[in-house]
Amino acid sequence: MTEFDAATAIGEGGTAELSDGWVIGEAVNGGILMSLATRAAAEALGAAGSHTDPVAFSTTFLAAAQPGPARVESQILRTGRSFSTAEVTISQGETATLRHTATFADLDANSEPVHLQEAPPELPDPESCAPAARGGFAEKIRILDRLDMRIDPATVGWAVGQPANDGEMRAWIRFADGREPDVLSLPFFLDALPPVTFTFGALGWAPTIAFSGHVRSRPAPGWLRMRITTRNVIGGLFEEDAVIWDSRDRVVAQSRQLAGVRMPSAPVSP
Amino acid sequence: MTEFDAATAIGEGGTAELSDGWVIGEAVNGGILMSLATRAAAEALGAAGSHTDPVAFSTTFLAAAQPGPARVESQILRTGRSFSTAEVTISQGETATLRHTATFADLDANSEPVHLQEAPPELPDPESCAPAARGGFAEKIRILDRLDMRIDPATVGWAVGQPANDGEMRAWIRFADGREPDVLSLPFFLDALPPVTFTFGALGWAPTIAFSGHVRSRPAPGWLRMRITTRNVIGGLFEEDAVIWDSRDRVVAQSRQLAGVRMPSAPVSP
Repeated sequence: MTEFDAATAIGEGGTAELSDGWVIGEAVNGGILMSLATRAAAEALGAAGSHTDPVAFSTTFLAAAQPGPARVESQILRTGRSFSTAEVTISQGETATLRHTATFADLDANSEPVHLQEAPPELPDPESCAPAARGGFAEKIRILDRLDMRIDPATVGWAVGQPANDGEMRAWIRFADGREPDVLSLPFFLDALPPVTFTFGALGWAPTIAFSGHVRSRPAPGWLRMRITTRNVIGGLFEEDAVIWDSRDRVVAQSRQLAGVRMPSAPVSP
Repeated sequence: MTEFDAATAIGEGGTAELSDGWVIGEAVNGGILMSLATRAAAEALGAAGSHTDPVAFSTTFLAAAQPGPARVESQILRTGRSFSTAEVTISQGETATLRHTATFADLDANSEPVHLQEAPPELPDPESCAPAARGGFAEKIRILDRLDMRIDPATVGWAVGQPANDGEMRAWIRFADGREPDVLSLPFFLDALPPVTFTFGALGWAPTIAFSGHVRSRPAPGWLRMRITTRNVIGGLFEEDAVIWDSRDRVVAQSRQLAGVRMPSAPVSP
């Protein structure tokens, strides 16, 4: 079993074991929890003979999750001809970690034809992009060990004290153990890059308040490309938009989150 | 009481009367339901002595709502020092209409300073923009009677058989009865323009599957300006992004939804 599939496995009675291999600092990465919740919803709907391909999901983060056991409870909200929806709560002890609502469909019937699509970013070859740094603070970002992430050198000035102050980062990404991307892994990938606020030199933790994503197509095998952007950093909150393209240049997923940030004191634009 | 406040009032025991003044075709407008649900969540949290300014919400639409009585049930998911969250279900009879999760905070503490912000669109004066059409199909869009909406003539070619095929619409908007905008009205305004897919000549109904929004600042009195865009129209689904600026040029809200569309047969871009 791959690392990702082990980390998102759901046991008898809706139990999960949150591994310390997917932490950032002291907390379990929100992206792996979103994929875990999406899998739980898919399994609940699949057991009811309904759709199992996620097309839209939203997650509200209620408390940080710690490595260890968790409870994963699913409730089917509707099963329809075209769309079906389930809600999942992940909790530890008495504390709810997140609430996740996900809508499922037959993705093959909802990903052709392509009338309009964002073009993928121009990126140097993965070999020309630096692998994510190891050591120092990165030691605490254990999900970096699960990923092969190559950030475009043009968007990584923040790592050498020269932030571009432009709110955009681009990267190649895939699992380190060779597992190919699928629809259930896309919620995880959408939140896997460093926060886009790193591009303003704000290198701290950026806790997600609310996250919403769309799956637009089934990803082909191979590298994924991502672009993350922000346009509004206001009062310690920012939105981060992400888009993922697969190896066929298809948009496979997109997301928007609202997260918190401690910015350097001076506004970056007038 | 203003039209908006009457339409989003919640009675004893969590009842609401969905007015036929806010319908589009046969169904009650999703935006007014999102504002109703946000108000219900704010009232539940306020009664618990917690935050009442929405900062993030997500809504999954489960079934069309009809004019008439509805049940509005709120559940507090957490009350925290900085953020509090409640979940609301609106239902009619045995049918759940929507599930809405909203996170609240003290907006005044989360809307200054402005480090980075999208610039508002350049729009002709409201007097130079055409009021939304009346008569014909528009007769069934009763929410147009509640709104003063002035669409930029540069983005309204679709109304005269000349769609721009560019996925962007810009407009001024306010309540017809003079009620000033506030945070609770922003979920409604975010979904009040015609679907952005009208710009491709796809003039039909565009049912929302999932909607997520952020409130970024308390709106000042006066006209609001909006821009809605789409970049991906794939397999009969599209995302619509909306941004609203107030009369001080501040970004006050933003949203993204996934919705369905029947496109003209030929792809609009290669």
